[in-house]
Amino acid sequence: MEARTPSESRTVMTDLVLPGETNPLNNLFGGELLARMDRAAGITAGRHSRRIVVTASVNHVAFGKAIPLGSVVTVEAKVSRAFNSSMEVVLDVYTEDRQSGHQTKVNEAIYTFVAVDETGAPVKVPEIKPETELEQQRYDAALRRKQLSLVLAGKMKPHDATELKALFV
Amino acid sequence: MEARTPSESRTVMTDLVLPGETNPLNNLFGGELLARMDRAAGITAGRHSRRIVVTASVNHVAFGKAIPLGSVVTVEAKVSRAFNSSMEVVLDVYTEDRQSGHQTKVNEAIYTFVAVDETGAPVKVPEIKPETELEQQRYDAALRRKQLSLVLAGKMKPHDATELKALFV
Amino acid sequence: MEARTPSESRTVMTDLVLPGETNPLNNLFGGELLARMDRAAGITAGRHSRRIVVTASVNHVAFGKAIPLGSVVTVEAKVSRAFNSSMEVVLDVYTEDRQSGHQTKVNEAIYTFVAVDETGAPVKVPEIKPETELEQQRYDAALRRKQLSLVLAGKMKPHDATELKALFV
Amino acid sequence: MEARTPSESRTVMTDLVLPGETNPLNNLFGGELLARMDRAAGITAGRHSRRIVVTASVNHVAFGKAIPLGSVVTVEAKVSRAFNSSMEVVLDVYTEDRQSGHQTKVNEAIYTFVAVDETGAPVKVPEIKPETELEQQRYDAALRRKQLSLVLAGKMKPHDATELKALFV
Amino acid sequence: MEARTPSESRTVMTDLVLPGETNPLNNLFGGELLARMDRAAGITAGRHSRRIVVTASVNHVAFGKAIPLGSVVTVEAKVSRAFNSSMEVVLDVYTEDRQSGHQTKVNEAIYTFVAVDETGAPVKVPEIKPETELEQQRYDAALRRKQLSLVLAGKMKPHDATELKALFV
Amino acid sequence: MEARTPSESRTVMTDLVLPGETNPLNNLFGGELLARMDRAAGITAGRHSRRIVVTASVNHVAFGKAIPLGSVVTVEAKVSRAFNSSMEVVLDVYTEDRQSGHQTKVNEAIYTFVAVDETGAPVKVPEIKPETELEQQRYDAALRRKQLSLVLAGKMKPHDATELKALFV
Repeated sequence: MEARTPSESRTVMTDLVLPGETNPLNNLFGGELLARMDRAAGITAGRHSRRIVVTASVNHVAFGKAIPLGSVVTVEAKVSRAFNSSMEVVLDVYTEDRQSGHQTKVNEAIYTFVAVDETGAPVKVPEIKPETELEQQRYDAALRRKQLSLVLAGKMKPHDATELKALFV
Repeated sequence: MEARTPSESRTVMTDLVLPGETNPLNNLFGGELLARMDRAAGITAGRHSRRIVVTASVNHVAFGKAIPLGSVVTVEAKVSRAFNSSMEVVLDVYTEDRQSGHQTKVNEAIYTFVAVDETGAPVKVPEIKPETELEQQRYDAALRRKQLSLVLAGKMKPHDATELKALFV
Repeated sequence: MEARTPSESRTVMTDLVLPGETNPLNNLFGGELLARMDRAAGITAGRHSRRIVVTASVNHVAFGKAIPLGSVVTVEAKVSRAFNSSMEVVLDVYTEDRQSGHQTKVNEAIYTFVAVDETGAPVKVPEIKPETELEQQRYDAALRRKQLSLVLAGKMKPHDATELKALFV
Repeated sequence: MEARTPSESRTVMTDLVLPGETNPLNNLFGGELLARMDRAAGITAGRHSRRIVVTASVNHVAFGKAIPLGSVVTVEAKVSRAFNSSMEVVLDVYTEDRQSGHQTKVNEAIYTFVAVDETGAPVKVPEIKPETELEQQRYDAALRRKQLSLVLAGKMKPHDATELKALFV
Repeated sequence: MEARTPSESRTVMTDLVLPGETNPLNNLFGGELLARMDRAAGITAGRHSRRIVVTASVNHVAFGKAIPLGSVVTVEAKVSRAFNSSMEVVLDVYTEDRQSGHQTKVNEAIYTFVAVDETGAPVKVPEIKPETELEQQRYDAALRRKQLSLVLAGKMKPHDATELKALFV
Repeated sequence: MEARTPSESRTVMTDLVLPGETNPLNNLFGGELLARMDRAAGITAGRHSRRIVVTASVNHVAFGKAIPLGSVVTVEAKVSRAFNSSMEVVLDVYTEDRQSGHQTKVNEAIYTFVAVDETGAPVKVPEIKPETELEQQRYDAALRRKQLSLVLAGKMKPHDATELKALFV
C-alpha cells in the first residue's frame, strides 16, 4: 500500500451560514460547525483510504471567533497522519470579508477516523507522506497526540510516550 | 471597476449525500441539489461582486446521472459573464468513485444572480475577463443565453438578438 | 394509453416560509423555493404518469419578487406537455396579502421529469390534452422549448427546429 | 365583521413523505404529520381572520393508517367554527395510490387557533357560515367540543354545557 | 406480564429552541413542539412496553404560553394508563428563567400510542401501577378520556360510559 | 458568588435517532451526536452560570459504539469544573436495549463553554463543588486538561503545569 500526500485527499467545503444554524447571538452554532467539520473530515479520510470511514474521536476543537449569520465559511480538511486503520484529520476553518474578500482563519480542529469494511471491521490504510513544512509539523504533532490519547485512556504508560514526555522533562 | 477573472471567485462545495436528502430511489433529490447549487452560485456571485446577491433566474439545469446516498458530491461554481448588475454563474457537479477516487461529471447548471445594496436596489458589478478556452466559450454563450432570455420575456425582438439569431439562419 | 388533461394531475402546495428557509435579507431562499417546486412538479408528473418520476432538467425559473419570512406561498404545478417518457411541468408561484387576502404571482418555472420503472429505465407516459387557452399556449411553447433544448445539446440541427426557427426568421 | 364560508379560507398542502420524516417502520412520523397539519391549519385560520394566529390547542388527532415513505400526502384544512378570537380548524389527510390515482382518507384532526395583534393580544374574528351538510355537522360539533374543553378545564359546570350534556342524558 | 410504575418509563427531553423552529413572532412553532412531544411520548411508551410503538392519537394539547427563541425547554413524559395494546402518555412541558433558574409549566398534552410487533400488529402491554397522587388522578381520568374517545368514535353508547357520564348527571 | 454542585445544573436530553441523522452504515452520524452534545453541554453551562454561553472548545470526544437508527439516546451533561468565566462540561451518552431496557454507555465527551454578557464579553461564573467520587475525579482531571490545553496553545510552559507534569515524571 503506497503512501499518499495530504493534498491528494484535501477537501474544501465552502457554504453559507443559514438562518437555521445560528445561536441566540445570531452566530453559527458550535454544534453545526462540529457537524460540518465531521462531514468534511470524513470525506477526506474516505478519499485517503478509499474505504468507508467512521468518526473515532474529536481530539480538539478551539472556537476562536464567532461566525455571523450569512457568512461564507470554508472548511478545509487534510489528513495529517495515518496509523494502521486510523487517520488523524486537521481542519482549518475560514470566513471571508464581503467587501475586501479577505479570508480570516477562525477555527482549527482535529478529528480521528477509522477505515472499516462493509461489516464494520477496521482495515489498514495507506501512510501519509507530508510535503510542506506545515504538513510535516502536523505529522510530528500527530504522534504526540496519539501518545497522549493512549496515555489518557490508560493504554500506554506515560514514560513510554517518548515524544510526548520530551515536552515535560 | 476593474474586470476580474472567473477563478478569483471560484467556489468549491464538497459534501456528502445525507439520508435526509434522498428520493424514494435512494438517490440525491433534485430539489436538494438545486438548493446546494443555488448556495454555491450565490457565494461565487457574492465573491465576484463583493455585494449581497439574490437569485434572479435558473436558466438551465440538466440532471445527467443519479447520485446515490452516501456519495461525495462536489459543486464547482464560476462566474461566466457579468452584465451591469447581473452575473451568470455556471456550475459543474462531480461525484467520485470510492475505490478508484475517479471523479465523474454528473450535472451542469446555469444560474443568474443580481447584486443589490442594503435596500435591495441593483448595483453595478465588475466585468469578467475569461482566461481559459472553456471560460471563453462560456463567456460567449452567456451572451446568446442573455438574448434568448430577453426574447422569451418579450423584452427584445428576435431579429435584434444578433448572436442568437446566427444559430438559426 | 389515453391522453389526460392538465387539471387531472394539477398539484397545489400551500405552505409557510419558515425561519430556517430565509436568506440574509429575510426572504425565502432561492434554493428552498427550487426544492419546493421540484417536489410539487414531481408529484404532478407522478400523478399524470402514475409512475416513479425523476427530475430531468430545470428549463427556466425566473425569480420575480422577494417572498418575506412568514408569507403564505402557494405552488401550483400542471403538466404542459408529454413527450414519450418525459413531461414538461409549468409551475406558478403565488403569495398572498394577509390583510386583503389578495394573491400575487411572484414566480414561474418550467421543469422536466422522466417516468421510470423500478429499475430506472424510462417508460412511456400518456399524452396531454390541453383544455384552457393558457394550457394550449403552454402546450405549443413546450414544443419550441423541447427543440431549443435539443439544439443547445447538439442533438438537433437548428434548421430542423421548425417551430423554434419560426421565431427568428 | 361579515361572516365568511369555510371554503373561502380552505387550504390544500400536497407534499411528499421525505426520507428524513419517517419512523423506524419507514412510515411518516406522527410528529412530522402533526407539524404539517399545524402549518396548514394556521394558514387557514390566518386566511379566515386575516390576522397573525397562534396554535391554542390540538383537540383531537386520530392516526388511522400508516403513510409509507415516498407517499403523496394531501392535508386539507377548513375552519369549522369561530368563537370570538378563536377558530376551530378541521383537517382531513389523504394519500393516493400511484397506480390507480385513488385518494384514501388516512387521518382527521382538530386544531384551535387564536387570532392576535402585533402585541400578541387576542382580536375578534369573523363568524363562519357553513355551506355544505358536512360543514354544518362540523359547525354543530364544534360547539359541543368547545363546551367539553371548558368543562375539562374547569371553566364551565357540566350541567351548563347544554349541547354536550344532551349526548349523555 | 407484571404491572410497571409510571416512573420506570419516565422520559426527560431537555433541548433548546433553535432558530429554525420559531414562528413569525419568534416563538417556538406549535408544530415543532408537537413533534418533540410525539418523540418523547413515543420513547416513554416504548420503554413501558419494550416494543415498537406508533402514535395512535393526540387527545389533547393546550398551548399555554409562548416559548421564545433560545429558551431551554424540558418535555417530561409519563405513561398514565395502559389498555391492552394502547398506552396513554401525559406530557408536561417546562421552560426556565435564565437568571433565576426557576421552571414554569407552559404546556400539557395527552398522546396515545399502540405497541406493535414487527409486522405492525398490536401486542399486549403491561398495566400501569400509579404511585403518586397525581399519577392516580391521571390514571382515573385516562379511563374517562378512553370512554369519551369511544363515544365520539361511535364505538360506545354514551350511557355505557359510566365514569364519563357521572360528570354530567 | 456561591459555589454550586454539578447536579444543580445537570441536563438530560433523551431523544430518538431519526432517519435524517444517520450515516451510510445506518448509524447515528458523528456530526449529529456532536451537535446534540453541544446543545446539552450549553444548556448545562447556562444553568450553572445563569448567563448566555458560547462553545469555547471541544476537548475530547471518543466514539465508542455505533448507535443504530431508531435507538433511544440519552445525553447527560454535568459541569466538572469552572475557571473564572469558563466551564468544563463532561457528557456521558447512553443507549438502551428495547427488550431488556438496559442502558449501555456508548460515548464520553468533554466540552468547554465561556459565559458572556449581552455584548459577548466574558463574565465570571460560580465555582463547582463536587459531591460524588466521580465528580471529584473529574474535577481534578479538569485542572490537568486545562494545563494541557494551555501548554498546547503555548500559553503555559510545560514545567509550570505541575499537576499535568506529575503524570510524566
